[in-house]
Amino acid sequence: MSRSGYTVDHRLSDVDANVHHAWDNDLEPILTVEPGDVVRFECRDAVDGQLPVDASAADVPEVSFDPVHPLTGPVAVEGAEPGDVLEIELLAFQHKGWGYTAFMPGEMGLGLLPEEFPEAGLHVWDLEDDVGRFVNGIEVPLDPFPGVIGVAPGEPGEHDTLPPRSVGGNVDIKHLTAGSTLYLPVEVDDALFSVGDCHAAQGDGEVCVTGIEAPMFVTCRFDIHDDRELDAPQFETDGPFTPTGHDERMYATSGVEDDLMAATKSAVRSMIDHLSAERGLTRGEAYILCSAAVDLKINEVVDAPNWVVSAYLPESLFPDPEE
Amino acid sequence: MSRSGYTVDHRLSDVDANVHHAWDNDLEPILTVEPGDVVRFECRDAVDGQLPVDASAADVPEVSFDPVHPLTGPVAVEGAEPGDVLEIELLAFQHKGWGYTAFMPGEMGLGLLPEEFPEAGLHVWDLEDDVGRFVNGIEVPLDPFPGVIGVAPGEPGEHDTLPPRSVGGNVDIKHLTAGSTLYLPVEVDDALFSVGDCHAAQGDGEVCVTGIEAPMFVTCRFDIHDDRELDAPQFETDGPFTPTGHDERMYATSGVEDDLMAATKSAVRSMIDHLSAERGLTRGEAYILCSAAVDLKINEVVDAPNWVVSAYLPESLFPDPEE
Repeated sequence: MSRSGYTVDHRLSDVDANVHHAWDNDLEPILTVEPGDVVRFECRDAVDGQLPVDASAADVPEVSFDPVHPLTGPVAVEGAEPGDVLEIELLAFQHKGWGYTAFMPGEMGLGLLPEEFPEAGLHVWDLEDDVGRFVNGIEVPLDPFPGVIGVAPGEPGEHDTLPPRSVGGNVDIKHLTAGSTLYLPVEVDDALFSVGDCHAAQGDGEVCVTGIEAPMFVTCRFDIHDDRELDAPQFETDGPFTPTGHDERMYATSGVEDDLMAATKSAVRSMIDHLSAERGLTRGEAYILCSAAVDLKINEVVDAPNWVVSAYLPESLFPDPEE
Repeated sequence: MSRSGYTVDHRLSDVDANVHHAWDNDLEPILTVEPGDVVRFECRDAVDGQLPVDASAADVPEVSFDPVHPLTGPVAVEGAEPGDVLEIELLAFQHKGWGYTAFMPGEMGLGLLPEEFPEAGLHVWDLEDDVGRFVNGIEVPLDPFPGVIGVAPGEPGEHDTLPPRSVGGNVDIKHLTAGSTLYLPVEVDDALFSVGDCHAAQGDGEVCVTGIEAPMFVTCRFDIHDDRELDAPQFETDGPFTPTGHDERMYATSGVEDDLMAATKSAVRSMIDHLSAERGLTRGEAYILCSAAVDLKINEVVDAPNWVVSAYLPESLFPDPEE
């Protein structure tokens, strides 16, 4: 899960002095780099250690959101000016052998279907040999990426890390894998880049509110473009464009509704029903698997007044019954 | 683009007597089949011949929507009852050598970005060797599927074919390729199946309101399940899950907004900007290429209040500048 041919110029550990918990362009940079420099960031998990490897579902409601998300940074990229574009070449990711997927108690209103999941849920994944181990012999291939990656907003003050913004942040774009290049609009001098909340895998949508959350090292190279303008993130990626890294048989459930969010909810509800009825998962396990390895696609947004969104489940996640 | 190992039991031409233009469970079936039967349907294009192979953009505003969509059917599947599930195994598609992608004058309000495209646009595609030929040497691989595929709604009366419904219809799911199996809820006796509006290719989203619209033959096999229930379409598919049939470098533009439709529009607007600035397309050509070969994915729907949708462009659509 790395690109060859680079040398790390700077290493940043995840000690408290290198970690912040809100976007704020008034934060002092912990490092200043030149364009072309390669930095290896140690990143904490999304809830900052509150769900360790031996956690259980009972621990999830006790999680405090105050330290969410711990981000490593900010790093100043010398010469970046408002109006420029910061290029971040993602070179490598290295997890630490484990991760978790959690959903919160429904009353917190997080995730796509909080009303259907009043109780919290948790799965702790052993990450070995580039797969995550789930229940019933199900294995999810790993394609690590940073859930939160961004630069400081131009607007002064502290900004919550939960919502993504035009300058990036919690974009949860699972295609920002090793080998990808992300372009972000710069709004403050020296850009002030931070990264964290890494996921070892995630389905498009991240429906239960977490991917496979995992502490991780992120290695990337920076560059600045003063000859282009952006008003939102753009990126280049080699994918993979399926949860398993190859085209294969998938089972899909569609939502047909006059609102894209309603269509998305319908599609995911039907997929949870399918996973429960046909694959023997509890509804909580199904919700977690959807978040970790089921992709949401917009099939059409033009056949007014109804739009179609479908959820896609790769069949090779499941053990072959004949083996 | 076909599955081997079947025999066609029935052929239906696209003569007027076999074609209808609205969903209506009072229509007489043009054919009654048994479960297991294979039917080859000849299907007209979406606008029923009003945009022939030598049409130009000037013809598009003259298109009447009265005959949209011409559907071949209905076919009665003997024994299907309300509450059952109709299985449609898609066996083969055969186009007739050409197709078109059109967008309507903006004042009609069709497509994702009507306000940005006041004038109509059209590209007529030569379809040969399983690729569609666009401008500037761009080639789009073909993966044919039916834009409209469904059964009669239970509610009496005529229903417009434009919106998809829980019983299918204009779902525009591009993964319903040869080898796929679609499951639809049955609402009336004998299901009353119809198909049409075939696309030789389409991006997820179909943003300009048409794919590569092409008259086509569709071959499928029917079966009935009385032991399961559905409230919306479900399907199995082998993909492909990218516009080119393989993972490859893609350029992607993201929309970050507090509404999924707004995020979708932002992502597509940025992709049109990119195609204009970096690939030398007119904005109209870019809109058409987005509709034919750019995929929309929902990256996250849980990081309130902002959601992320991205548009993905495969780089191999473009001719290699070094060749």
